[in-house]
Amino acid sequence: MSTENSQTIFFKNAPRILAGYSVVGPKEGQGAFKDYYDKILDGDQLKEKSYERAERLIFEMVIENAIKKAGLKAGDINALLSGDLLNQITASGFCAAKFDIPFLGLFGACATFTEAMALGAVLIDGGYIKHAACASGSHFSSVERQYRFPLELGTQRPPTAQWTVTGAGCSILGAGGKGIKVTAATMGKVIDYGIKDVNNMGGAMAPAAMNTIEAHLRDTGNKPDDYDMIVTGDLGKFGSQMLRELMDNKGIKLGTNYHDCGAMIFTKGQKVLQGGSGAGCAPVVFNSFILEKMRREKLKKVLFIATGALLSTVSAQQGDSIPCIAHAILVEGE
Amino acid sequence: MSTENSQTIFFKNAPRILAGYSVVGPKEGQGAFKDYYDKILDGDQLKEKSYERAERLIFEMVIENAIKKAGLKAGDINALLSGDLLNQITASGFCAAKFDIPFLGLFGACATFTEAMALGAVLIDGGYIKHAACASGSHFSSVERQYRFPLELGTQRPPTAQWTVTGAGCSILGAGGKGIKVTAATMGKVIDYGIKDVNNMGGAMAPAAMNTIEAHLRDTGNKPDDYDMIVTGDLGKFGSQMLRELMDNKGIKLGTNYHDCGAMIFTKGQKVLQGGSGAGCAPVVFNSFILEKMRREKLKKVLFIATGALLSTVSAQQGDSIPCIAHAILVEGE
Repeated sequence: MSTENSQTIFFKNAPRILAGYSVVGPKEGQGAFKDYYDKILDGDQLKEKSYERAERLIFEMVIENAIKKAGLKAGDINALLSGDLLNQITASGFCAAKFDIPFLGLFGACATFTEAMALGAVLIDGGYIKHAACASGSHFSSVERQYRFPLELGTQRPPTAQWTVTGAGCSILGAGGKGIKVTAATMGKVIDYGIKDVNNMGGAMAPAAMNTIEAHLRDTGNKPDDYDMIVTGDLGKFGSQMLRELMDNKGIKLGTNYHDCGAMIFTKGQKVLQGGSGAGCAPVVFNSFILEKMRREKLKKVLFIATGALLSTVSAQQGDSIPCIAHAILVEGE
Repeated sequence: MSTENSQTIFFKNAPRILAGYSVVGPKEGQGAFKDYYDKILDGDQLKEKSYERAERLIFEMVIENAIKKAGLKAGDINALLSGDLLNQITASGFCAAKFDIPFLGLFGACATFTEAMALGAVLIDGGYIKHAACASGSHFSSVERQYRFPLELGTQRPPTAQWTVTGAGCSILGAGGKGIKVTAATMGKVIDYGIKDVNNMGGAMAPAAMNTIEAHLRDTGNKPDDYDMIVTGDLGKFGSQMLRELMDNKGIKLGTNYHDCGAMIFTKGQKVLQGGSGAGCAPVVFNSFILEKMRREKLKKVLFIATGALLSTVSAQQGDSIPCIAHAILVEGE
């Protein structure tokens, strides 16, 4: 039960993460978490005629395998909560047509994964359903041509740019039992600091991340040191540094336990400028590295905040700024 | 609590619809429900530089006024659940930046309104939040140029086409008290019968509507006659006739209590071919005519099923079929 102005929902029945599954493209497969992903693709088109169709297949792959890994069948899943960056979230919608599971389509840009986890946890915690599949993903080539330029143009990237992750992640949530649990979720507000540079998403999203982390700390009474790890989604190197400075100015010090999936996911020398981004960035890191470290009890309490930029090509072309959002989930070991 | 294969969620605490607000464009304002809308605009551009920006303003208008009509302030609303047809749901995202309310972005195409109502009702019924604003809308001119052709082309419409509604609707849900309540929600599955004609959305969506209505009747044990009204979102004349026939083949007879918002919203002579459509169609009818009839106790038990086509311009151009979805809410008088 939340208080009047709380943005944070507390889960009394602690929905469990029964399984997490991640699939990434070849470039991500050479990155920092190459030993943690469930599957690394050897190409990014999967013999499909378009990148968009390949992206759907990646979604199908993670959802199908996440369900299997949890020891369940599709018929056991009561709701699929999913979204992606494609116009009208077609990767998710078309993929959902392949499963005989009720579908709740979400859009929070790169913050979609934690929105799915928060709502999935609500449905389970409240006793409305037994199992939820929560997924999000992105594809470098489909996103690049939708939001920016056709790849064939070979457009040069400015230094603040990030590299959209090809990959998707899916967590299966279930009621009861033991294991890693979702204990709270903080729903983010849309924050717009007026940044219009579509090649500086990290900078645009950092204020939204700050807003949600602040709300979470206020609602829980916690301090940054109370977590083994605080992880943002895809602010990248520049954006996560900006978040540190913004929080510093508010008197909240993020310590060495603060990390960003986008800043971590690729290695030095992979030529990705500020790091990874995309709706696949947060879920593939969460469903591989983070869950594995939690399973091994190297991490016990993780605040995970996916971050999203709610722009479209049309809004950018019409000269609008970039409204951003961040949703947080609190994940704890047994 | 739902059974294993149930798609229907039952609300024990019966979240109340504290207020509903609807805004429509001039053409809709001359339609069948002209006496029921809260506000009829005298133009569709609202002095904005683009239709997309005008659409945002319409969203702001309905959300702000729905909150007022419920006797609340923005600070009383714990979650704004909203979505629209624009790429990356920018009408909702940009609008949400104007409110100091946590935002849950949704995409179910024209089924978004009932998805928002279902999830808003879950959040309230479970005691997680006190008040939710659930909104959806569309704008003829922004949708037309995004999904189909620039208006300036003056492209001729085929007979199965529908007319996208300019307008938005918002319901405020709250815990406890008296009045109209949401007693159940049926989450839809994505259904794809292989229809590829983007000018026959009603035909594409009818099977999804059937699937959800069937699930609802199965889960509740009800028959079509048990409702004062069964209302689909925007199947239009052709699509709603198709739904009748599809259900007939399944041995389920939809009686004279079955209606479709798209088929009803315009009057004869308005030249809209099969009727209205768009993510604004269902919410403006629900938040005007339907709620008013329920308030006056002309209707006591309404099954309301918004229907959505999950295609994008890119998926249509790549030759894909149109996956569709329908989410239902059961709304009852005191």
